[in-house]
Amino acid sequence: MRLTQEQMDRYQEDGFLLLDSALGDDEIARLREAFDRDCRVPGPQRVAEEGRDEVRAVYASHHRQPEYAGLVRDPRLLVPVQQLLTDDVYVYQFKINAKPAFGGEKWSWHQDYVAWQIADNLPAPLQVNVAVFLDDVDEFNGPVIFLPGSHRSGLVNKARKATAKSAQHLDPDDIALSEEQLSGLVAERGMVSPKGRAGSVVLFSPEIVHGSAPNMSPFPRRLLIMTYNDTTNLPRWDGEPRPDYVVCRDTDPLRALDAPFLDALEGAAA
Amino acid sequence: MRLTQEQMDRYQEDGFLLLDSALGDDEIARLREAFDRDCRVPGPQRVAEEGRDEVRAVYASHHRQPEYAGLVRDPRLLVPVQQLLTDDVYVYQFKINAKPAFGGEKWSWHQDYVAWQIADNLPAPLQVNVAVFLDDVDEFNGPVIFLPGSHRSGLVNKARKATAKSAQHLDPDDIALSEEQLSGLVAERGMVSPKGRAGSVVLFSPEIVHGSAPNMSPFPRRLLIMTYNDTTNLPRWDGEPRPDYVVCRDTDPLRALDAPFLDALEGAAA
Repeated sequence: MRLTQEQMDRYQEDGFLLLDSALGDDEIARLREAFDRDCRVPGPQRVAEEGRDEVRAVYASHHRQPEYAGLVRDPRLLVPVQQLLTDDVYVYQFKINAKPAFGGEKWSWHQDYVAWQIADNLPAPLQVNVAVFLDDVDEFNGPVIFLPGSHRSGLVNKARKATAKSAQHLDPDDIALSEEQLSGLVAERGMVSPKGRAGSVVLFSPEIVHGSAPNMSPFPRRLLIMTYNDTTNLPRWDGEPRPDYVVCRDTDPLRALDAPFLDALEGAAA
Repeated sequence: MRLTQEQMDRYQEDGFLLLDSALGDDEIARLREAFDRDCRVPGPQRVAEEGRDEVRAVYASHHRQPEYAGLVRDPRLLVPVQQLLTDDVYVYQFKINAKPAFGGEKWSWHQDYVAWQIADNLPAPLQVNVAVFLDDVDEFNGPVIFLPGSHRSGLVNKARKATAKSAQHLDPDDIALSEEQLSGLVAERGMVSPKGRAGSVVLFSPEIVHGSAPNMSPFPRRLLIMTYNDTTNLPRWDGEPRPDYVVCRDTDPLRALDAPFLDALEGAAA
C-alpha cells in the first residue's frame, strides 16, 4: 500500500504516477453503482454537459454515498498521499468527471492550483490529486494528457481570463494556458497520457499542466478525482466562500481504514 | 512499389493499410512548402475552420502545385491503387485537411462513399483513398480512427440528415452515424488509429467507418487525402455538378511516373 522510494521519486520528477489496476473489478462495479445513484440526486453539485442533458461532472459524492465516503480513507489511496504530502490531509475537493460517450468535451490545458489560488486563496500547492479510472481508459475516450515535469516550472499563468465562463466551479477554459505558453512547454516536456484498466489510479500534482481530448468512443469515460490538501493549508476566503460541494468544509485529518473500503463497508453493514 | 499479396489481403480484411515512411523527409519538406504556397491562393477551394481564420482544408492542390501534380502519379502511390482497383483510375477528389494546432476540430464518424453517392451519384464504391501524413501523427494530434473491417458491412446510413450544414462539400456531420449504429459497430470491430512519421501513407476504403478527434497538440497535423476512382465509375449528376475543385473533371486514366515525383520534377526542370 505504501509507495516505494522509486515511485516517490518518479512522482516528484514527472508530476504524476500511474498505479496500474490498484482497485479490483468488484470494487469498480460498486463504485459505478454508487455513481449512477449519485447522478440521480438533484442539486447544483450535478453539472450538465454544455447544451446537453448528460452529466459532465458530479461533486462531493463522498458526502452522499457510503462507498465513496469509505474510498477517501482507503489505505491504498490515502497512505500514498500522506507519504507525498504529510500525515494530516483532508479532502479539499471531490469530483467525478463523466465524459459521456460521443463528444464528452475536451478540457483545456491548465494547472489546477491556479484555479484554487484564485477561487479559494489556497496558500500553497500542498495537494495531491488522486484520479481513479471508473472505466478503462484508452487513447480514444479522452484520456488526461500530462506534460511530464511541467509542475516543476511553477505557475505559468496566474491571471484568470476576463471572460470567465463559470462562477462557482472554475472552468479550465478560464485559466487555460495560451498557445504560445503551451508550445514552449510541449517542446520541452512532451506529452504523456496514462492509460489502463478501470481500477487504475493516477496520482498527480496540482501544478502539472494537463488537459484532455473529447471522448470519441461510444463508451463513457468516468473519472473520479479526489484532491487531498494539507490541513495546515486551508482556504482563506476574502468574500463569500465557494459552496461546500465544491470545497469541502470537513478539514479534520483523515485516518486510513484498516482494510480496503469494501471490506470496511461490509464490516459496518454486518 | 507494388503491394505484396499479404498487404493486399490485409487491405481487403481491415479496409485500410499503413505504409510506414513511404515518402522521405526531403519529399515531405517540399510537399509542405507547396501546401503553404497553396494556402495563400484565394478562392473557394480554401475552407476555413468554423469561426477561425485558419485553414481547415484545401482542395485540388494538384491543379495548382507541380509537386502535387507529380505526386498523384507517383508510382509508390498510384501502383498500389491500381493493384487494389484496376489499371484505369483517375483522381476523383484531392484535399489536404490542415487540422491546425489547438483544436483543429474533430470529424464525425462517417463513411466517405455515402457522401459521394448522395452528392455525385457515384455508381459504386470503386475508390481507394490515399492519405499521406504531411506531419508526424500521434495520439495527441487528432489521428484518423478506423473501425477495422467495417467497410465489409456495406453502407450503414444512406440518408443525409435534413439539417445539412454544407452545400458544396459534404460535411461529415451531415452523414454521421448515429450513436446506436456506432456503438454496435465498435463493439464488433473495435477502433484503430494508424500513427507514424511524416511521409507515412494509409490506404483506406471508401466504405470504412472513420472519424477523428480534435488536435490537442500545439503542432499542426496536415493530412493529404487523394481519392482515386475507377474510370468506368464516373459521377452521374442529375442537376448542377459540384465544383471542379471538389470533384475533379479530368477522368483520363493516370499513368505512373517512372520515378518518385521529385526526381520527375527535377528532370522536367533540368
